[in-house]
Amino acid sequence: MRIAPLSKEYLTKAQERLNSLTKPLGSLGRLEELARWYVAVKENIAPKLDRKVIFTFAGDHGVAEEGVSAYPKEVTAQMVYNFLGGGAGINVLAGHIGAEVKVVDIGVDHDFGDLPGLLHRKVKRGTANITRGPAMGREEAQAAIEIGMALAEEARRDGADIIGTGDMGIGNTTPSSAITAVVTGRPVEEVTGRGTGINDETLRKKVNVIERAIKVNKPDPSDPLDVLSKVGGLEIAGIAGLIMGSAERRIPVVLDGFISGASALIAYCLEPGVKDYIFASHLSQERGHRAILDRVGLKPLLDLEMRLGEGTGACLGIFLVEAAVRIYNEMATFKGAGVSEKL
Amino acid sequence: MRIAPLSKEYLTKAQERLNSLTKPLGSLGRLEELARWYVAVKENIAPKLDRKVIFTFAGDHGVAEEGVSAYPKEVTAQMVYNFLGGGAGINVLAGHIGAEVKVVDIGVDHDFGDLPGLLHRKVKRGTANITRGPAMGREEAQAAIEIGMALAEEARRDGADIIGTGDMGIGNTTPSSAITAVVTGRPVEEVTGRGTGINDETLRKKVNVIERAIKVNKPDPSDPLDVLSKVGGLEIAGIAGLIMGSAERRIPVVLDGFISGASALIAYCLEPGVKDYIFASHLSQERGHRAILDRVGLKPLLDLEMRLGEGTGACLGIFLVEAAVRIYNEMATFKGAGVSEKL
Repeated sequence: MRIAPLSKEYLTKAQERLNSLTKPLGSLGRLEELARWYVAVKENIAPKLDRKVIFTFAGDHGVAEEGVSAYPKEVTAQMVYNFLGGGAGINVLAGHIGAEVKVVDIGVDHDFGDLPGLLHRKVKRGTANITRGPAMGREEAQAAIEIGMALAEEARRDGADIIGTGDMGIGNTTPSSAITAVVTGRPVEEVTGRGTGINDETLRKKVNVIERAIKVNKPDPSDPLDVLSKVGGLEIAGIAGLIMGSAERRIPVVLDGFISGASALIAYCLEPGVKDYIFASHLSQERGHRAILDRVGLKPLLDLEMRLGEGTGACLGIFLVEAAVRIYNEMATFKGAGVSEKL
Repeated sequence: MRIAPLSKEYLTKAQERLNSLTKPLGSLGRLEELARWYVAVKENIAPKLDRKVIFTFAGDHGVAEEGVSAYPKEVTAQMVYNFLGGGAGINVLAGHIGAEVKVVDIGVDHDFGDLPGLLHRKVKRGTANITRGPAMGREEAQAAIEIGMALAEEARRDGADIIGTGDMGIGNTTPSSAITAVVTGRPVEEVTGRGTGINDETLRKKVNVIERAIKVNKPDPSDPLDVLSKVGGLEIAGIAGLIMGSAERRIPVVLDGFISGASALIAYCLEPGVKDYIFASHLSQERGHRAILDRVGLKPLLDLEMRLGEGTGACLGIFLVEAAVRIYNEMATFKGAGVSEKL
């Protein structure tokens, strides 16, 4: 894989253009940062941003049988139907920003038959229970990553200008916290939160489950694929592959929250160059998210106390990128508008 | 004036509806807060949000002659032409959210003739230099407030569902900081920032100018109209009136940054009930903004290090309100989508 660093030349050119626009220098703050980033990723000084695609990867988790979630496991499949029916949060927010939602079954423990509208990429029907052994084999993790990478290639062929990541999988904050603890070296307790809304007792159990999973599997922090296969998840692997494949193809990626963060952490450990191609849309309420963002070196755009997943935060982030690109492309210059410049 | 407190009944009804939607309870964080607020302001359990209007009030400031801004004073009028030509930041961001921009000349020191598209509401050609005496007479401040209130009534008649505030006025962070210092009692230095981007030396001068203005005018902190007329501005007064008039008519208001904040502070001191009808879109980089938000009790939605004004932050805030209202109106319920509820 070859991921090039962002072009300093385009970053500079973008800032020059921003400085020529009728506003005080730097006064659009992080919108200017987004505009520079987008121009440099695209290596285009007049980039378009039309086609927006959210990929929502769905997978099940054997560890759900340990009772770590506030919702029953069948909700994963039920929500896939809800996504296809247009009734979920991601559908509404993607509609609000004019993005398409692509729903990927990468590992749901349900037979969808040849359900239209669903991208059928099932590696297997959910991971195994990580308190008893690895979530999946190393080859399965690799296969799931490659599915994500192949979807990045499909997105490129379809003309996607920007990609948002999303997830669905009852129980998936558990493997995400496990990955975070192993990779960052932080105590499990510090990076484990309430997921869909568990109480204190279930939270204690969840921390214990993750600690046992790490003890049983002994994932090697220096081997991201080992961590991913032993204590990860199929949708986490798919998103990691999507991130890597998009970075390779210079497609900007806006990350959703905690699960997408765990994916980005794996992708970053495998290919540190991905960092230049991703932006964190928001800080999740899930407490382990900050540790991930700090490790990868990402500063989230929003903090709206959200913790829904699906790609909902990514939609809000893409809206801001689009606002920034429109400012960059559409605003008048001091010269063009006959406005006096700084004294 | 009669501003009713928000209906607890509608807040509860809105939360009940949010709880029935296919997402973990409370998982949309502040978007849920926005949805509850909008429903309760409208007293409508299925509220529409179609017509969005940004009011950008322009006014000049005699104090600009003290050299407190990084830009020359004629930029106020030049930017009014830029607004009408569609080339400013506010035009681009309002276009991005589908909002209309209404530009109000409430006190620009320029003769626009009968320029079409501009709302001609000039009280006078700019305020007087506040280091030498009051910015305006008490009756002029009252007239500017009434202009804002009348625009709220026009917006109601035109069917505006939500209003965003905005400002343009070279030098206007100076009166805004003066108002903030007087009303909150904080030292001038702590609530005075770099405005359009002044250097250290000009910042020291600006602090000194504000301290002199307060010493010369002796505004009475317990009399908001006294503060507004002595050290305020015409656009600040107009926005304050718009806020009060909108609250009275149950039109939700999304505030822009620091200048709108100073207006909200005056409106809040005149009519504390306005607080229920306003939301702060973002935390401005202008340092006095935090003191205002703390005093009124507002928690900004965004922190994107912006400091442009014009209503640009308000646009981003309105986008979030609309996202919240769409979630509230459009998402499927657990029952409707056949998704299992919390265990």
